[in-house]
Amino acid sequence: MSRTSRRRAVLEHPAPEEIDLFDVLHALSDPTRMTIVRTLSTEPERACGTFPVDVAPSTLSHHFKVLREAGLIHQREEANRRLTTLRAAELDERFPGMLTAVLGAYERSPGAR
Amino acid sequence: MSRTSRRRAVLEHPAPEEIDLFDVLHALSDPTRMTIVRTLSTEPERACGTFPVDVAPSTLSHHFKVLREAGLIHQREEANRRLTTLRAAELDERFPGMLTAVLGAYERSPGAR
Repeated sequence: MSRTSRRRAVLEHPAPEEIDLFDVLHALSDPTRMTIVRTLSTEPERACGTFPVDVAPSTLSHHFKVLREAGLIHQREEANRRLTTLRAAELDERFPGMLTAVLGAYERSPGAR
Repeated sequence: MSRTSRRRAVLEHPAPEEIDLFDVLHALSDPTRMTIVRTLSTEPERACGTFPVDVAPSTLSHHFKVLREAGLIHQREEANRRLTTLRAAELDERFPGMLTAVLGAYERSPGAR
């Protein structure tokens, strides 16, 4: 397949009302995914290869997929980059205060620093 | 083995400082375990067979084990009953506000009612 005809993967995101609490909690129950979420919590948007995590690209890709399908992050493609944002406002509307409380708990965890 | 010499399973509980955030989040990422936690959140202590969940005893036993090892519940044996309590105060000391926020999120979920 030529470079120009290569189709990009369709990035599916759940609508806010489809976000499932158990999917969110599962997504947050992994240290790498939590690091991604915490990193995004203080930034507007970030390119995929620039997160402070030490995992193989395929593993990182899986973690982004879990986070995206759970409704925690939004991803879009721009030129040759995939840009990621935290869906903080939507999550806070659906589950008020929860993400903030979980991130606060993470700050108190030994592995957070 | 005679009834009187039957040894009870040792119920191990992590110390408060050993409670791991990712274990807690994983434990809460299941509907049956969430139901157990929510039920306990409004009661001081409850016998194992009396929770409003519809799963096989062996499955229920597994869920209690996950919750206990994560540090969410405490279990003790008394006569022929195993009694369970939520470690709400210890959890709140370790991760302030988190369990309350997660339970609040659950109340807003479609499956909660």
